[in-house]
Amino acid sequence: MHIALYQCPPLPLDVSGNLARLELKASQAAAQGADLLVLPEMFLTGYNIGAQAAFSLAQARDGESAQQIMAIAQETGIAIVYGYPERSSHGQIYNAVQLIDAQGRSLCHYRKTHLYGDLDKSMFAVGGDEFPVVELNGWRLGLLICYDLEFPENTRRLALAGADLIVVPTANMKPYDFVAEVTVRARAFENQCYVAYANYCGSEGAIHYCGLSSIAAPDGCRIAQAAEDEALIIGVLDRQLLNDSRAINTYFSDRRPGLYTVLSRG
Amino acid sequence: MHIALYQCPPLPLDVSGNLARLELKASQAAAQGADLLVLPEMFLTGYNIGAQAAFSLAQARDGESAQQIMAIAQETGIAIVYGYPERSSHGQIYNAVQLIDAQGRSLCHYRKTHLYGDLDKSMFAVGGDEFPVVELNGWRLGLLICYDLEFPENTRRLALAGADLIVVPTANMKPYDFVAEVTVRARAFENQCYVAYANYCGSEGAIHYCGLSSIAAPDGCRIAQAAEDEALIIGVLDRQLLNDSRAINTYFSDRRPGLYTVLSRG
Repeated sequence: MHIALYQCPPLPLDVSGNLARLELKASQAAAQGADLLVLPEMFLTGYNIGAQAAFSLAQARDGESAQQIMAIAQETGIAIVYGYPERSSHGQIYNAVQLIDAQGRSLCHYRKTHLYGDLDKSMFAVGGDEFPVVELNGWRLGLLICYDLEFPENTRRLALAGADLIVVPTANMKPYDFVAEVTVRARAFENQCYVAYANYCGSEGAIHYCGLSSIAAPDGCRIAQAAEDEALIIGVLDRQLLNDSRAINTYFSDRRPGLYTVLSRG
Repeated sequence: MHIALYQCPPLPLDVSGNLARLELKASQAAAQGADLLVLPEMFLTGYNIGAQAAFSLAQARDGESAQQIMAIAQETGIAIVYGYPERSSHGQIYNAVQLIDAQGRSLCHYRKTHLYGDLDKSMFAVGGDEFPVVELNGWRLGLLICYDLEFPENTRRLALAGADLIVVPTANMKPYDFVAEVTVRARAFENQCYVAYANYCGSEGAIHYCGLSSIAAPDGCRIAQAAEDEALIIGVLDRQLLNDSRAINTYFSDRRPGLYTVLSRG
């Protein structure tokens, strides 16, 4: 599977502008052979937009923008993962990501479970106990959002559910370059899976994003990597590399779950 | 607290030779102001020595070599963490590490819980459910051994028990440089603690050690780092840096233990 990440500056409060560039990048990525395009956290609206804007721009997971993205996916023949503010049927606003497959169907949806500071907490309700893993093009795929990745428990949970690939739309800012540089690779290696981490670059209000989007392989190498500028990068998942790496790094048969009960104590 | 790591080639099967260089390095480290000297995994006997040698060289945790190391610690005024094959009171052989304080007392003891491949499994019984955290010079300290570090659950468990510092004697070989280069820093950052990782260099039979011993800080930086040659490196733990880093990276108040129960399911 070929995965494209679109690293870009946010375009705050401009849903139609973001849909337009989503369509353009979906076409470009598909033309370059990508099967999946991953966009940053809250791509549809921008991230640092405040609670009032998040509330007013939030949409249902099958709302108007979702319908347009489904149409784009179908037309361009590429699956799309994008972040957006979700309005639930109970009226709560979540920091959410959705995977639309190349046939235009919603294949996976995730609400951020680990909210980052006042920024997230002022805008969003916290996601519940749902970490779905689905199959896309023969690869088992799970979703996380930004800060979620920094907790080893979250990637572990998806890996235990069989994820070969963890897709992480993010809005990671300076000075947290460490997460993009080091943590992403550590998560891929310790869980023997691919991790695709799609970040913003540029600024949004007082936030300066660190870019450095990447796809890390189970051997810890990066198969695609952006610098600090806008970029569309593509990496190719390699089933043989995954199998070979898992044969050497037998973490999942060597784990001792009985020793880890303290991790889930309140 | 000043911590010294002694990265060296193993001296297999030569307990008295290893005690002699332990004494020398303890003196040198103390003379350079170190409060704690950390030696690699199975330092007392070498690591790749086979089951028969491990069995015949194994000693009680308060055995003859331990007594000599206690005397060295007391004479040089430095605490010592060293690895050795332990013979338990039931006759089982463990891959163990022990912390002797500068007064010559056994302060902490740990048996490797995650055995690495046939190499470990042919020599050792697996450690039980004991991950002690003790106080040394005002710092809360826990112990792991080599492969243990690669499982995020183990460092997490020690951090949840309050560890400020995780000391890891290791015998990490090529091609696993990734662990020394990346995983060590990721563990320090995700757990907001120091990680001191003391490896071998050189060769032992068919094993080529990767060196790269280091002390990683809670901000992910390395405060001491060896290359691939023999070295005595020293780093200084900084309480202010620890506190500042924990104030920014609030992982332990942001964790959601209720979501992690699957990690301890068999």
